[in-house]
Amino acid sequence: MRKLIRRTSRKAGLPPGSLVHVGERTVDKTQISVLDYAADHIEEAVLASADQCVAFKDKPTVTWINIIGLHDVDVLQRIGECYGIHPLVLEDILNTQQRPKVEDFDDYLFVVLKMIDLDPETKEIAAEQISLVIGDNFVLSFQEAPGDVFENVRERLRSGRRRIRERGTDYLGYALLDAVVDHYFVVLEALGNHIEDLEGELVEEPDRETLHSIYTLKRELIYLRRSVWPLREVLSFLSRGEARLVQQETIAYLRDVYDHTIQVIDTIESFRDIIGGMHDTYLSSLSNRMNEVMKVLTIFASIFIPLTFFAGIYGMNFDYMPELHWRYGYPTLLSIMFLATMGMLVYFRRRKWL
Amino acid sequence: MRKLIRRTSRKAGLPPGSLVHVGERTVDKTQISVLDYAADHIEEAVLASADQCVAFKDKPTVTWINIIGLHDVDVLQRIGECYGIHPLVLEDILNTQQRPKVEDFDDYLFVVLKMIDLDPETKEIAAEQISLVIGDNFVLSFQEAPGDVFENVRERLRSGRRRIRERGTDYLGYALLDAVVDHYFVVLEALGNHIEDLEGELVEEPDRETLHSIYTLKRELIYLRRSVWPLREVLSFLSRGEARLVQQETIAYLRDVYDHTIQVIDTIESFRDIIGGMHDTYLSSLSNRMNEVMKVLTIFASIFIPLTFFAGIYGMNFDYMPELHWRYGYPTLLSIMFLATMGMLVYFRRRKWL
Amino acid sequence: MRKLIRRTSRKAGLPPGSLVHVGERTVDKTQISVLDYAADHIEEAVLASADQCVAFKDKPTVTWINIIGLHDVDVLQRIGECYGIHPLVLEDILNTQQRPKVEDFDDYLFVVLKMIDLDPETKEIAAEQISLVIGDNFVLSFQEAPGDVFENVRERLRSGRRRIRERGTDYLGYALLDAVVDHYFVVLEALGNHIEDLEGELVEEPDRETLHSIYTLKRELIYLRRSVWPLREVLSFLSRGEARLVQQETIAYLRDVYDHTIQVIDTIESFRDIIGGMHDTYLSSLSNRMNEVMKVLTIFASIFIPLTFFAGIYGMNFDYMPELHWRYGYPTLLSIMFLATMGMLVYFRRRKWL
Amino acid sequence: MRKLIRRTSRKAGLPPGSLVHVGERTVDKTQISVLDYAADHIEEAVLASADQCVAFKDKPTVTWINIIGLHDVDVLQRIGECYGIHPLVLEDILNTQQRPKVEDFDDYLFVVLKMIDLDPETKEIAAEQISLVIGDNFVLSFQEAPGDVFENVRERLRSGRRRIRERGTDYLGYALLDAVVDHYFVVLEALGNHIEDLEGELVEEPDRETLHSIYTLKRELIYLRRSVWPLREVLSFLSRGEARLVQQETIAYLRDVYDHTIQVIDTIESFRDIIGGMHDTYLSSLSNRMNEVMKVLTIFASIFIPLTFFAGIYGMNFDYMPELHWRYGYPTLLSIMFLATMGMLVYFRRRKWL
Amino acid sequence: MRKLIRRTSRKAGLPPGSLVHVGERTVDKTQISVLDYAADHIEEAVLASADQCVAFKDKPTVTWINIIGLHDVDVLQRIGECYGIHPLVLEDILNTQQRPKVEDFDDYLFVVLKMIDLDPETKEIAAEQISLVIGDNFVLSFQEAPGDVFENVRERLRSGRRRIRERGTDYLGYALLDAVVDHYFVVLEALGNHIEDLEGELVEEPDRETLHSIYTLKRELIYLRRSVWPLREVLSFLSRGEARLVQQETIAYLRDVYDHTIQVIDTIESFRDIIGGMHDTYLSSLSNRMNEVMKVLTIFASIFIPLTFFAGIYGMNFDYMPELHWRYGYPTLLSIMFLATMGMLVYFRRRKWL
Repeated sequence: MRKLIRRTSRKAGLPPGSLVHVGERTVDKTQISVLDYAADHIEEAVLASADQCVAFKDKPTVTWINIIGLHDVDVLQRIGECYGIHPLVLEDILNTQQRPKVEDFDDYLFVVLKMIDLDPETKEIAAEQISLVIGDNFVLSFQEAPGDVFENVRERLRSGRRRIRERGTDYLGYALLDAVVDHYFVVLEALGNHIEDLEGELVEEPDRETLHSIYTLKRELIYLRRSVWPLREVLSFLSRGEARLVQQETIAYLRDVYDHTIQVIDTIESFRDIIGGMHDTYLSSLSNRMNEVMKVLTIFASIFIPLTFFAGIYGMNFDYMPELHWRYGYPTLLSIMFLATMGMLVYFRRRKWL
Repeated sequence: MRKLIRRTSRKAGLPPGSLVHVGERTVDKTQISVLDYAADHIEEAVLASADQCVAFKDKPTVTWINIIGLHDVDVLQRIGECYGIHPLVLEDILNTQQRPKVEDFDDYLFVVLKMIDLDPETKEIAAEQISLVIGDNFVLSFQEAPGDVFENVRERLRSGRRRIRERGTDYLGYALLDAVVDHYFVVLEALGNHIEDLEGELVEEPDRETLHSIYTLKRELIYLRRSVWPLREVLSFLSRGEARLVQQETIAYLRDVYDHTIQVIDTIESFRDIIGGMHDTYLSSLSNRMNEVMKVLTIFASIFIPLTFFAGIYGMNFDYMPELHWRYGYPTLLSIMFLATMGMLVYFRRRKWL
Repeated sequence: MRKLIRRTSRKAGLPPGSLVHVGERTVDKTQISVLDYAADHIEEAVLASADQCVAFKDKPTVTWINIIGLHDVDVLQRIGECYGIHPLVLEDILNTQQRPKVEDFDDYLFVVLKMIDLDPETKEIAAEQISLVIGDNFVLSFQEAPGDVFENVRERLRSGRRRIRERGTDYLGYALLDAVVDHYFVVLEALGNHIEDLEGELVEEPDRETLHSIYTLKRELIYLRRSVWPLREVLSFLSRGEARLVQQETIAYLRDVYDHTIQVIDTIESFRDIIGGMHDTYLSSLSNRMNEVMKVLTIFASIFIPLTFFAGIYGMNFDYMPELHWRYGYPTLLSIMFLATMGMLVYFRRRKWL
Repeated sequence: MRKLIRRTSRKAGLPPGSLVHVGERTVDKTQISVLDYAADHIEEAVLASADQCVAFKDKPTVTWINIIGLHDVDVLQRIGECYGIHPLVLEDILNTQQRPKVEDFDDYLFVVLKMIDLDPETKEIAAEQISLVIGDNFVLSFQEAPGDVFENVRERLRSGRRRIRERGTDYLGYALLDAVVDHYFVVLEALGNHIEDLEGELVEEPDRETLHSIYTLKRELIYLRRSVWPLREVLSFLSRGEARLVQQETIAYLRDVYDHTIQVIDTIESFRDIIGGMHDTYLSSLSNRMNEVMKVLTIFASIFIPLTFFAGIYGMNFDYMPELHWRYGYPTLLSIMFLATMGMLVYFRRRKWL
Repeated sequence: MRKLIRRTSRKAGLPPGSLVHVGERTVDKTQISVLDYAADHIEEAVLASADQCVAFKDKPTVTWINIIGLHDVDVLQRIGECYGIHPLVLEDILNTQQRPKVEDFDDYLFVVLKMIDLDPETKEIAAEQISLVIGDNFVLSFQEAPGDVFENVRERLRSGRRRIRERGTDYLGYALLDAVVDHYFVVLEALGNHIEDLEGELVEEPDRETLHSIYTLKRELIYLRRSVWPLREVLSFLSRGEARLVQQETIAYLRDVYDHTIQVIDTIESFRDIIGGMHDTYLSSLSNRMNEVMKVLTIFASIFIPLTFFAGIYGMNFDYMPELHWRYGYPTLLSIMFLATMGMLVYFRRRKWL
């Protein structure tokens, strides 16, 4: 199973602004790709070194720099210096155990959020931290590992769609947030299907495996909730339009993402409620089966143990047992046994055990 | 069982305002019907094409356009253009996975809510999204499927009732909201009866079926709660009278619907509490029966197993077993067995097992 | 058991202000009684028709009109017209499924609350809706059925107590609210005693009946809570003194009723907590008894089944079984059996099963 | 067990300000003791009659009058008249079912709170209502029964400690509140020890008694919580310094008591959480033991029932049973039985039942 | 197990400001060490007596005085007098049962918080109270026992790091808070690993030990939560920058610690949720195993008890039992028994018991 908590302990006690990467190293070399565009122009580049960022710094166009891999602290430091980013922000970007949050500095907005994916095999959730720094003419996005949900945004930029190309960095920031939140629905859909499968099992034949699945699902939802819940505040802040960088026209779009986030949270809460109910149902279902097993045992034991006793009686070797010598002793006993058995069966049927 | 979540995933990553229908296609062709009225005039029409809407656009009368079936994105787009509706609103109308909400644009109010129905057979809740766009002289209502709870409103309009015919679009909007909320009571009543039936079963003879019903009911109430709860905010906003389109005289009516919504939510919460208690009771009830089964088994086993042992003793073939040759060995043993049985029965009665 | 929800469904879809009685018809004819008083004067009357109300309308004295029975919609309509009451208020009075609430119209206060009673036999709660309309010189009180908790108030009025006779309609309204809330304590006391009885059963001999009682109690408390909780807001509003009709001197008294309501709610919450604990205790208690039953079974079976086996061995008919022919075979076997039994008993005692 | 609710029902329906004592009569005669002091002077007295209070009324010194026993309504009424106390306040003093609260009248502060004690034998909580009326030059304290936690305060006054002797009535009021809240810690300590004892039992040998203790503890904590929780608001109000009677220098002290109250509430909540967990643990512990009992039974039954069957086979009296006449039939059978037993034991060990 | 509550009872009833140490005595002699620094200067000293503090009082440099051991009330009193600290603050420092809190006096800030550690063996949490008094040119830190998490801060001071050496007392205070909160992550990581171990056991072979561990973990988390939760308010207050002593530049750093505290609280809540789920899973897991045990028993009993009965029948000694004399009686019976056994096995397999 996924670790409950990442190793942050080695950061303990370091001075603030110490750049220490908390998380796994996923790529050999930090990848820096740039998308620089204006309404009538677009340029793509892969940077060999962080120092090349300077070239884009004072351009009036919108520059989107996407950084993949956070283990190389030097690269981040240089980008940070280039764009004048506070050391505590860089520290937060590196610490992938962050809670989603937004911070409004004078020159830029800093947004942390979680990109979620579901392993189709193990049904485990993988979360990757995405940090966005949105300035007047640049957007920096930091990812832990290759692979993201932004391909559609890139396509829209490349294909020259008017809205995204003409608007500023706030709209690009919105587009990235929207892509992340939209992907939550994909994950929720998969989880919903998984829950429905479990419900089927629960009704038909619950076993150890079902129990384990319920437990894991519960755990995953706790994690998912923790990753998404604080996003509500982030989007609420952004869509209130108090940040200088968010333009009036973008607010309606941000409000739309806010609505989606609420929907995601609602759905997570529903799933949690449903899974809570599944646990009770599982236990009741087990009790039901135990009851059935016990009834079978009781019926067999209650019928045959007394009969065996009677057979035992006439297996005794006393010298004087007159019944043994009666002509009809044996058939009489068999008849009594048959009647007793019938009586028991009627009794059990009356109690609805049969 | 109803799907936990609708397929929204194919929307993921599309640009905002992309019109994609999320939901099932229920009709072949989108149906557009118009009810245009003033205090002294009423006109009904079924439109062959969305373009015919334009005819009503600048009339001073109130125009209620009801659209059934959301799969045909073109139709919606044309209506949207005709009445100047924001693309994000159209997107929300098409995405039937919306949370109830209200949005106050300058020219119109946009309201999303859920029309609820209960399948009398399966006791499952079916929710259909109703979107209302309330402008100065028009009300657009969008439904997913044919069949609604607005027939009474139409009747009142046709029969020329003064209040509804003389007042503006805000009153018509209120009337539609009221019809939807009133129908919730019908559903709650049916659910209440279903819960009472289950309570009966619980006391008398709980079985697997009962467990399944409790689980399903819990799940349905989670869904119902999620569909109704946000309506509270919607009606709270409308009845505060802050929206330009809501006139002073309509506020008292909206406050009335608000009260009804609170009542619905209260009832749902009570039902949830009651069902929570049913689960505990079910498990206790099973334990009770297990106890009874176990007592029967224990009584039979505890009486007959020792007796069988004694019979076994005198069935042994040792050469020297003096008791076997006593004249009264057999009746003595029978008497001892009888007394032991009596003793056991007294013991069990004292323990209240009999 | 009491119905979970009253039939409100036939109201669904009717235009607002439609006067439809939701509830049971309890009297043949609606009873209208009047108590008209001032500091030095009191007059009592039973009105034959609702139209007679007009006579009291413009008197400067305080007029308390008590209406019992809500099925006769005409009567209400006429009273409503006489005192200028909004149709939506009349509709609320007739719908006895209302939530407690207060509404401040310009000319009068409208208060809805629940009068609670406990059936001493079935321990079921009966709630009757009381609606109060408090104007400048009149108080209208509407009851569903005969019998109320206002007899003390009437006595005080008749006996000429200064405070109640000299003060205005707001003080009479307070006196009626106070009488209803005071009666909640009577109900809580009875419920408290019932819970204590159940606690006794729980410790001594819990059975199916106990389980059923716990379940019913839980259900009744859910209902009670729903009936009383919103009263908190009602009294909080009234005791803030924002309503024009509430005079300064009455506020201290209303604050007192508010305190009592909080006390009632606190007690209900405590009862709910206690009953939650009873359910767990019941299940644990059953498990305890199951354990005891199982121990008895296990002790008997574990001692006698092996012994029976040994008796069975020497009951076999092999030609060559040397033990059978030993002189001391039989007593030796009996001794071994005795020792084995002792060993088992020691073992069970060590495990604290005996 | 302590009654869940005191008899308030006979108050129902009485006019407001009716002085009715709700609670038990604990002393024959209401005791009134006076402590009158200033920085350089202290005087103690026991009053024979309530009328003697008048003597202290207009003195500039601080007069602390402590009244024990509330059954004598006359005494209270006279004291009330002497110090000009509102009838509703006197009613609240007499009704010992009050919720802790503070009320700020113009001339005095009225504070109700609960003095808690724990019976060391039964571990049951006894709560006594303490009412304080704090005026400009007097403090009235009302107790239900003799015995209180104020002895230390009296000692400090007598011994002439400067702070308490020089400050006014607000400081005395603080000292009394502090004494009550400090005593809560004594009770919590005793409860903490009791919980730890129960935890020990839970791990070692949980029985019926443990279950009963857990249930009682839960109930007591519900009661304790209800008694202490509202005190938070009381002290929050007092320490905000809005009341005219609370001087600036006393606020820091009241804030200190406020902190202690929060600590008490925190501790109660923790205890409640812990006890919730104990119930689950108890049930799991029982299940564990049931599992063990069942394993013993199953092992015995599964080994000896088949063996008995084989012994039964060769105890049959068929004429033609060749095995019976084989020379090594008996030892062969014994060997087979021995091997079968060994096989079963190995199987059970593999399943970890042994 | 750790005591649920420390002995505060002997403080009950003492006058406010009475200095009584609540907690354990951990060192023989209170240790007082001083770190006095400015940007270009640092001096370390161990004070032999509290009176030596005076020397540092009026220096413009930052003086950090760390006091270890709180049993010596005299020492504290003298330090308190030297720096002008309110007696109630000293009382709070000595009472190690405090809730984390911040108090803003005019001349200094008083902060109480908990330093947490986890015993790697018993997995028990040890909390030590840290009190900070932050003045204009001094920081006092009080610890209960030797050993702390501040070594890194001391190192940074000694090594002359510019930021910490140049800034004032508020930054030092921040550094100490940060060190404490950073260490929480170390504890959470260890707890996370412990929970994962338990999850492993839960799936494989849950036993009594597992139950005990779950219970202890639950208890520890309740305690941890209580220790950390109020810190949220402390840091929220400090990072709002309302306190005079907190400079503008330090606020960003305090906000960072605030974020970390929220993360800690989030993680604690997740852990609590997960452990709640573990309890249910444990019980279900036990039920699962009980089911298996019962099935084994039932299969054995249901097969062999009937067979034994048939063997018993032909072990009877009736004179007239024709079957006994049939040539093929014995093999016929054996065949019937074999077929019956096969039938039972098929039946059990169909029920999925095998």
